Amino acid sequence: MKPWLESTLRELNLTGTMDRPDGFTRLGYSEEEVEAIEAFKKAAENLGLTAYQDQAGNAFARWEGKVDTVVMTGSHLDTVENGGGYDGVAGVLCGLGAVKQLKEGGYQPHHTIEVSCFASEESARFGVSTIGSKSVAGILDYSIEDVTDRHGVSIKEAVEGVGLEWNSLHQAEREDIKSFIELHIEQGTQIEDNGADVGIVRGVACPIRLKVHVEGMAGHTGTTPMGKRQDALVAASPLISFVSNEALALSNASSKPIVATVSTLEVKPNVMNVIPGTVEVGIDIRSVDDELKRRMAAMIKEKCALIEREFNGKIQVDTLVDNTSILLDEELTSRVEQAGKSLGYKTFKMDSGAGHDVMNMAVKCPSALLFIPCEKGISHHPREHSSLEDLSIGVNILAQMLRQEAGE
Amino acid sequence: MKPWLESTLRELNLTGTMDRPDGFTRLGYSEEEVEAIEAFKKAAENLGLTAYQDQAGNAFARWEGKVDTVVMTGSHLDTVENGGGYDGVAGVLCGLGAVKQLKEGGYQPHHTIEVSCFASEESARFGVSTIGSKSVAGILDYSIEDVTDRHGVSIKEAVEGVGLEWNSLHQAEREDIKSFIELHIEQGTQIEDNGADVGIVRGVACPIRLKVHVEGMAGHTGTTPMGKRQDALVAASPLISFVSNEALALSNASSKPIVATVSTLEVKPNVMNVIPGTVEVGIDIRSVDDELKRRMAAMIKEKCALIEREFNGKIQVDTLVDNTSILLDEELTSRVEQAGKSLGYKTFKMDSGAGHDVMNMAVKCPSALLFIPCEKGISHHPREHSSLEDLSIGVNILAQMLRQEAGE
Repeated sequence: MKPWLESTLRELNLTGTMDRPDGFTRLGYSEEEVEAIEAFKKAAENLGLTAYQDQAGNAFARWEGKVDTVVMTGSHLDTVENGGGYDGVAGVLCGLGAVKQLKEGGYQPHHTIEVSCFASEESARFGVSTIGSKSVAGILDYSIEDVTDRHGVSIKEAVEGVGLEWNSLHQAEREDIKSFIELHIEQGTQIEDNGADVGIVRGVACPIRLKVHVEGMAGHTGTTPMGKRQDALVAASPLISFVSNEALALSNASSKPIVATVSTLEVKPNVMNVIPGTVEVGIDIRSVDDELKRRMAAMIKEKCALIEREFNGKIQVDTLVDNTSILLDEELTSRVEQAGKSLGYKTFKMDSGAGHDVMNMAVKCPSALLFIPCEKGISHHPREHSSLEDLSIGVNILAQMLRQEAGE
Repeated sequence: MKPWLESTLRELNLTGTMDRPDGFTRLGYSEEEVEAIEAFKKAAENLGLTAYQDQAGNAFARWEGKVDTVVMTGSHLDTVENGGGYDGVAGVLCGLGAVKQLKEGGYQPHHTIEVSCFASEESARFGVSTIGSKSVAGILDYSIEDVTDRHGVSIKEAVEGVGLEWNSLHQAEREDIKSFIELHIEQGTQIEDNGADVGIVRGVACPIRLKVHVEGMAGHTGTTPMGKRQDALVAASPLISFVSNEALALSNASSKPIVATVSTLEVKPNVMNVIPGTVEVGIDIRSVDDELKRRMAAMIKEKCALIEREFNGKIQVDTLVDNTSILLDEELTSRVEQAGKSLGYKTFKMDSGAGHDVMNMAVKCPSALLFIPCEKGISHHPREHSSLEDLSIGVNILAQMLRQEAGE
């Protein structure tokens, strides 16, 4: 299995080597994502599966059973800019690996098995995540069509640019799925910190995202005395350490963890001899404890109001996203845990700080999420890495689950 | 004079109205700058002057005297992005206005008079300022040829794009200039704060510019616990308030003012769900007191070292620019002051926090700088404004100076 995992990992990443200083850039609905999906279809066909794509650009590799109801596993192949080669890919790869293992063992599924590869999971391009699995779950919000990437290309244009029809995305909705199990890299170190082999995820912490707009006054850096400035960056700067310090304190004081990050910051005009006139700050807050998350958002809004009072300018806070966290199916999750234990692996029950396609699938059918470790928790980074050993463990647990769930 | 000033101001700004929400964008060596220079040549010819351009793209309007040595006044027509219509333009406009006044009064110059319009004064496009006047002064550093704007166009390509030859720029050097007087808007409020009509500038504060590179570690915002981060933006943020607070304190404690600004900040990867991995901060420090300026730079470097010790990452500080401040010609400056007083204006002796073409011309010949007020000190901004009254005062003083300097 390991040589196959190693070569298929490279194939899905469209690369001869996983050691790439700039990592991988396959944004949602880009030419690069399309190429990776083609590689997926080829790998699936090599295993004797039937590959097809739906109206949202999701790809599926189908192993026909005796009945049409589908047991599904899978993830995505798109990446952030200069991301790693395991986020998403690991789930698709291990899904195919599990099918390979079952086929080699002579297994015949009663329910149909599908390995899925959801389109545009990352929010890196448009600030909107999991467009493919939202379409499958029937929860796509069509009002996002005019949201643009940083080159001014709208979601609708990007979708149509890869040969799909924007108005047909909802036709990707499925009613035939019996259960869905996603495998993903942890993107953290809790599994390792707890001496376990895999993570069994109970809930997915969905984010609150804030955009803070600080409006000061541009002016010449050389001629505006220090006491006469409305520098938007100076006004915004205490917010950065506030978010970091308060999230740490709140997390330490609570039973469930919380994280909050000033992840984006745009200065205008951002030239050497002009005082920053406006600053836009993006803040990402996550916890499976929705109450805690909303408390953090409220504290940030209060802090902004406080800064505004001392600052001779304007600060506006917009809530871009406020999604309630998702609890996964208890019974299916418990069966994944049992499968792991029965194979001799040490499992660790945890929550996910990152959103995944499974959170949409959970709306449609019983769903579960299995984490495998990634080295030092590094993710969304060229140095992202999961060992072949850990990928094999994922294959073994998924194969056991598919065998069970697709049985009579 | 005022109706002429008003209409010529609009002509030089290539606009029907000065009230433009997005201001003016005429970057150095751009098509827009070329068009403004054409408007200058037309306005000069309408006054009976001979317009010509040199090898660096500078334009001159010549009023032949009995001898060839030149008394020059002028400034530039390029702007920052979304800048105002007075920075640079005021000096060119008042220079032409002074010639108009002298001509209408029947004056005949002994020395030749030229109004200059220097190319690419602003550093907004390439981070390099006053390319045209540096060429005239013979101090252009040819090693800048590969410096690019944010679209990847190099200075050399831009220069050649407007029909010039990069290797011929040095041929613009002049040896025939007797004296140079620049008029510019103040871009501050010292004239107004001191109840004066015009500013008589003794020295130009040239900047120290630092680039601080903060190298942390990118990671997923949802899965990296607060205590395990190397967030480059959190590390960099105390520097912003430090620069602002320390410059204010240092300025208050010193006899000469100092200003320091974190004017640029780039976050990478700058996406919502990734912890900032690297941050690049640009800092601009100015004072005519070079010692004070260098003390501020040293304090910033110390602070960076301190932050680095507490931060699990790397911080590097590069000095991009460290230019000694320029003292203008005492005698010529004193004659400008006398000219203002003799016309009944209240003059105020001051330093310039901004660089101007005059700082290069001062290398070549006795040079002086006259400031007229601009409303609320607003500059490099669409709301930049100088009144027709103040422009007329500038014209009167310049005319008096040209009459004096170009006399036998």
